Parts: sequence; C-alpha cells; structure tokens
Amino acid sequence: MRFLIKFSYDGTHYAGFQRQKGKDTIQERMEEALKIVNNHQKTPIVATGRTDKGVHALSQYGHADLSVKITEKKLKRALNSHLPDDIHVMETKEVEKDFHARYYVKKKEYQYVLNRGEYNPLEKNYVFQYNYSLNVEEMKKAIFYFLGEHDFRAFATDNKEKENCVREITKAQIKEKGEKLIFTFEGTGFLRYQVRNMVGLLIKVGENKIKAEEVKSILESKDRTKSGKTAPACGLTLVKVTY
Amino acid sequence: MRFLIKFSYDGTHYAGFQRQKGKDTIQERMEEALKIVNNHQKTPIVATGRTDKGVHALSQYGHADLSVKITEKKLKRALNSHLPDDIHVMETKEVEKDFHARYYVKKKEYQYVLNRGEYNPLEKNYVFQYNYSLNVEEMKKAIFYFLGEHDFRAFATDNKEKENCVREITKAQIKEKGEKLIFTFEGTGFLRYQVRNMVGLLIKVGENKIKAEEVKSILESKDRTKSGKTAPACGLTLVKVTY
Repeated sequence: MRFLIKFSYDGTHYAGFQRQKGKDTIQERMEEALKIVNNHQKTPIVATGRTDKGVHALSQYGHADLSVKITEKKLKRALNSHLPDDIHVMETKEVEKDFHARYYVKKKEYQYVLNRGEYNPLEKNYVFQYNYSLNVEEMKKAIFYFLGEHDFRAFATDNKEKENCVREITKAQIKEKGEKLIFTFEGTGFLRYQVRNMVGLLIKVGENKIKAEEVKSILESKDRTKSGKTAPACGLTLVKVTY
Repeated sequence: MRFLIKFSYDGTHYAGFQRQKGKDTIQERMEEALKIVNNHQKTPIVATGRTDKGVHALSQYGHADLSVKITEKKLKRALNSHLPDDIHVMETKEVEKDFHARYYVKKKEYQYVLNRGEYNPLEKNYVFQYNYSLNVEEMKKAIFYFLGEHDFRAFATDNKEKENCVREITKAQIKEKGEKLIFTFEGTGFLRYQVRNMVGLLIKVGENKIKAEEVKSILESKDRTKSGKTAPACGLTLVKVTY
C-alpha cells in the first residue's frame, strides 16, 4: 500500500531534509520510523522536495510503500510514537500505487519571516532578526518582478550549467505584521536557495542599495553574482503544498 | 548607579531563574554578563520574582548596582554581547538608589497557552499540547472564582505552613484563538506554581470531572490535595510587569 504522509518539522537541529552520510536529517528520522512500523523492512520516503539545513516545514508531504496492513489513523499514531518531538506526522492517506509525492505537486508555498523589532528569544529559531531600517515600500515594488515565469538562474545556488532554471511564481507578497515582515512565495517549484536568495535581494532593495526596477535586469542577467546575499535559513518555512 | 533591567528569555534549557548550585540558571547567566560589564566585580541581580524550570519570560525585570560609568544604551548592548541567544536584555534604565525590582512591583501578568489542535513542532517548547476535548464554557465560568483576594494555599506548592498565602488576582480570563486556549492571570503577586496549579484545576473542570462552582470550595479548603495537577511549565510565560 502506498501512503501519502503529511508532516511538519522544526529544522533547527537537522542538516536538512535529505539523507546525508553521518548527518542527522529529517529523511533519516522518517525512514527509521517507517522501518519500525513496516516490520523492520527498509522503507524509503519520497518527499515533495528537500528543505535545507535549518529550514522548517509546517506542511511537507512524502509517499512511502508499506507492506504491512495498517489503517491511516494507526499509521499516523505509530509513526509519531517513533519520531522525535521536532518531527510530527499530521496526516496519512492511502493513495494509488502510481501517486508520486514529488511529480504530482501543483504548487508550493514558502513563508519567510524577518523581524525588525526587539529580538525575542522565543522566536530565535523561526525568524531572521534584522536590526536596521528597511524601505519596505520599495521592497513591495521589487517583489512584483518575481511574479510569473522566469529563468531564475541568478537566484539559484549550486545549480548545474545545463539545468533548467525556469520556474513560475504565482504569488509573491510582503505583509507587515507589527515589526515583522512576512514574505510569501507560491510557485510551481523552486530552485535550491531560491527563496532565500530572493529575500536576500529584496533586503538589498530595502537598504536602498539598488532600485526596485533593477530586480528585472538582475533576473535577466542569469548571473548569481549580481543578486544579493542568501538570507538565513531560520526565517524560512514550507507552509503549504497543493496536489 | 542602580539600573533597572528589562529582559526576556526562553526558559526551556534552564533550571529556572534562581541560582542553584551546579545548575544552569537565568540568574547565573545574567550575573556573569553583569560581572564582565562591571569590571569583573561580583554584581547580583534582584528580579521581580523567580520563574520555575522551563517557564519563559517576555518581560522580566531586575535591578543591579554597577560601579562603572555606563550609559543605558551601552549597558544594554554590552550585556547582550555576553548573554546566550535565549536570554535578551530589552531595556535598561537608571533608577534611584532605593528602587527595588521586587518590592516595587504593582502587578504581574502571566499567560498560559494550551493547544488542542494538531501538534506543531515549532511550538513544542511554548505551548502545552492537550489532545482531549474540553468543556471550555464551564472552564470560563470556573476561572471567575479566582478573581479577587483569596488565600491561595490550595494552589501553592512547597509553601511553608506559616507563609501568608493571600494574594489578589485582578484579571483572569480564557480566550480561544483557533484551537488554542490562552489563559491570562494578572495579580499583585503569585505563589510558587500557583498559575500552573490553577490551570491544572481548570483543565479538570474542562474534563467535566468537577463543576465550575467547586473551585470556590476548593479555594476555601486551603488544601493542596483537593486541587488539580500542576500544568506543564512550557505553556507558561511571564508577559508583563507593572511598577
């Protein structure tokens, strides 16, 4: 039976989603729990995509094939009993044998939180603390240039030269909530570090180092060295996946 | 010069505010930072009161006497540079030599957060996860009995027999925010574990194990064995102190 598993995690203490030798990853923890539940047989999970070191997820999905007979409810409970408290299975659903957690994704939504107010130790792992002033109006103008279909090569890190970097962004907005800036990006898919690199450039706009309009030419340049710094991982959370 | 220091902390990894031999405490960390800033002289801090192991503060105060000449702004910056990232000085203010951070407190406000919705790993250290249903209407009736001046002996832990347990509660309310219950208690002072013991009894009311009216007789009994379990520390935060 193939199950689609919806799960969430606090990425603070993990080297990211994807398995890496000698490192503690979400994938390894999930597969350890799946193995125990699935009669100690190796049980891989295929997720919607990876999240990097320190990045969180409130709504991540993955599929896995189990040979034991188990109900959706019991699978949820069993997995949670074998997971650490910073990873949590929210829902499980039996799906068709050909369902694929990565290929079938229609949209993903990421949220990035930046705090300009007083530092709050309770939020230290979940927001990017930024202690300087920002020109938010200019940032709001700039974020519009990311909307639509573009070659995001200038915002990708570690991409191969021949890789297709064309992606579509269907929502891009900045909301102010008290002293926080909340960036939302929804799209069909994202390149590695793309969201954090886009936020990095928007901060550069907010610092009045470049004009909003320049985002357009930077996109068109396809040159990573022209865009901003990568914003820290802790502010980023995968918040929604649509199938 | 006497300074009043406003600070916040994530209590998760500390054995509480108060210094204890061989344990990591907020007081010790604050006094270590103060010592460095104050020319390596021992510099005690007197706080509004202690918070227990695992309890947080978004607004704690303490006074300390420094012999070095330093401005309020510089003191804040210097202390923060010597504090770990789960303790943060928000403000410092020079006060009169006879000002006392504990004796001068007029009111304190605590917040307790209980979550009945899906467990969220990003909030694991800040809310009490409660997976059963609760009769919130009955709990809202019950909380009113705590208002006003009472002998709270039935809600104190570790109190000495002769200790005065009379305290006044000036605000007591439960708000529903999505699947969360947010308890607010404001008062002139609180006994050790008092808030968590009151929340514990309110949960017992919510479980329909006792009626709202029984809170009155439990208060009057002055008998700790009659009230509920102590609610877990992680849900509790000191949110406001009024001088």
